[in-house]
Amino acid sequence: MKLILLGCGAVNLSLLEILLARRTELSVRYGLQPKIAAVVDSRGAAMSPDGLDIKELIRVKKSKGSVAQTTPSGRADVNALDVISEVDADMVVEAIPTNLRTGEPSLSYVKRALEAGRNVVTANKGPLALTADLLPSLANKRGLFFRFSGAVGGGTPILDLAARCSLGDRIVGFQGVFNGTTNYILSELEAGLSFEAALRAAKERGYAEADPLIDIRGLDSASKLVILSNAVFGTRMKLKNVKVKGIRGVTKAKVANAAAKGRVIRLIGSGGIAPAVAPQEIPRESPLAVNSAMNAVTFELERSGSITISGKGAGGKETAGALLRDILTIHAKLGGFYPARDETAPRVATVV
Amino acid sequence: MKLILLGCGAVNLSLLEILLARRTELSVRYGLQPKIAAVVDSRGAAMSPDGLDIKELIRVKKSKGSVAQTTPSGRADVNALDVISEVDADMVVEAIPTNLRTGEPSLSYVKRALEAGRNVVTANKGPLALTADLLPSLANKRGLFFRFSGAVGGGTPILDLAARCSLGDRIVGFQGVFNGTTNYILSELEAGLSFEAALRAAKERGYAEADPLIDIRGLDSASKLVILSNAVFGTRMKLKNVKVKGIRGVTKAKVANAAAKGRVIRLIGSGGIAPAVAPQEIPRESPLAVNSAMNAVTFELERSGSITISGKGAGGKETAGALLRDILTIHAKLGGFYPARDETAPRVATVV
Repeated sequence: MKLILLGCGAVNLSLLEILLARRTELSVRYGLQPKIAAVVDSRGAAMSPDGLDIKELIRVKKSKGSVAQTTPSGRADVNALDVISEVDADMVVEAIPTNLRTGEPSLSYVKRALEAGRNVVTANKGPLALTADLLPSLANKRGLFFRFSGAVGGGTPILDLAARCSLGDRIVGFQGVFNGTTNYILSELEAGLSFEAALRAAKERGYAEADPLIDIRGLDSASKLVILSNAVFGTRMKLKNVKVKGIRGVTKAKVANAAAKGRVIRLIGSGGIAPAVAPQEIPRESPLAVNSAMNAVTFELERSGSITISGKGAGGKETAGALLRDILTIHAKLGGFYPARDETAPRVATVV
Repeated sequence: MKLILLGCGAVNLSLLEILLARRTELSVRYGLQPKIAAVVDSRGAAMSPDGLDIKELIRVKKSKGSVAQTTPSGRADVNALDVISEVDADMVVEAIPTNLRTGEPSLSYVKRALEAGRNVVTANKGPLALTADLLPSLANKRGLFFRFSGAVGGGTPILDLAARCSLGDRIVGFQGVFNGTTNYILSELEAGLSFEAALRAAKERGYAEADPLIDIRGLDSASKLVILSNAVFGTRMKLKNVKVKGIRGVTKAKVANAAAKGRVIRLIGSGGIAPAVAPQEIPRESPLAVNSAMNAVTFELERSGSITISGKGAGGKETAGALLRDILTIHAKLGGFYPARDETAPRVATVV
């Protein structure tokens, strides 16, 4: 399977590392033999019709800052749109930093990829949250696969779980903690830090986005809420349809006041007819009262009560795992030998 | 799709009710038009090559106690094995009460179904926990689908989540609360009840199995642990390979003592090299410290930290949802139109 990687930051660099580390297992167990036909980063690209040397790509990116420095396959004078159209590939894997105002350049890249007949895997919230069903519809129309499980929950398979739950039952609503940065800040407020100190700590740990206002104002949460809502309810919502309130008004005093009542404050996104993101007091024993940079979502099912999933909501390695999950799923649908006839069956025969 | 239902207790009766209630949606959204070719219960069967009237089946079962009373399709003089072999069907849906000593009669029924070329969906722990990879291997050999997501966690898609997690990362271990009855009893001990009173309460609420010792001795948990371990690690473990300690020795005093340290006692099943079930003290804020009859499992991933799922672990409606999930999954693999090209895409066009 020939891949084009768009972006080579924490996520796609981790993906390359995983593809290298699990090479034998991915080949033997799933029949996946990825060839990296091109990698595009902000300063150029590396391209090879025979597949790039993954080890060398990682080395060059880490030591020189851009895959364009790879010899002999690196080039600085490339137009990403041309690479997407012209390099022979089965799939485009997009992991460019999210832009929640325009969705660009990812939006144009994903569109181009689908128009060029490439299947697409993305971890990017922006294009999906801003354009509702534009991209999934385009993919469906062209008979292509388009998956984005890394766009909600990082490595935690929230969208996948929603899809499974929807098969056996009907999801009538959901509530979740969709942003790790704000959850970390709220947890630190509980520990007695001021808002400013908590934000600083989040930045030091690398949790905050490049622009932390995206997190703090609730826009990151809202974008994930939109993507999950559209997937679950078949709506065509956009980010602007969500009523959003961030955590800027949450003080140490408010958190302490809640704690005195056995409650915690969390930034909760609620899916349904009136999607909203706002800080809410919830019982300390609620499954959504996760700590630190965790995410959690509770799905309310028509017949089966509620089901909750929690896990890390971000991180390069984690999100790269989501990309790989999507790559393997599409690979199987294109004829690869995963899933086995029964994906829950023992895999004795194929364990490496 | 022609189905044979084995068993018509809480689970398969709920399945019939769901198939009836969601009939239009299942047809429009997933292309599933189930025909019930036969239903077998402990007193006979109802059979019709054109498909039985689901509404009538439910009415007769509820009012007369057996589908054998259906006219004109009911018969008391049937051999279930003959029905499995001889009634024309694509799939056998098995939900007979679990027997953890012999796995019978379910084991023979599932074997016969696979030998007769039927795909199989089951919610039954016994046959799987006692025979390791026998049934999945048989299915693989015959090119048939065999799914059993209802066997672990009832309606909570624990096996499905494990499969998704295994794609993007490697599960290196897991711990879980796999039995609702014992968890309910432990929760009630915390509330101050004696063991006997808590057990009585569990029975009154319908949580305890026909033989509550299966729960209390940890055998129900151990059987689910075996099934999940084999699925996750590709092992060929059987129930007898698990070191099991039940909750009979957990007293109100021990629970109170743990509570004084901010901890709770839960019956934890641990997957890995040395699979074991035993009561353990865990922090109150652990994601496994679920209350009442809930189940929860935490998967430890090599690269992505831990992911936890929690939900109701049993119940007729819930487990019927798991059966339906498996039926739809197999239906899709046999050429039905779910999953759509992208199962996470908006389903606008097909929402009923």
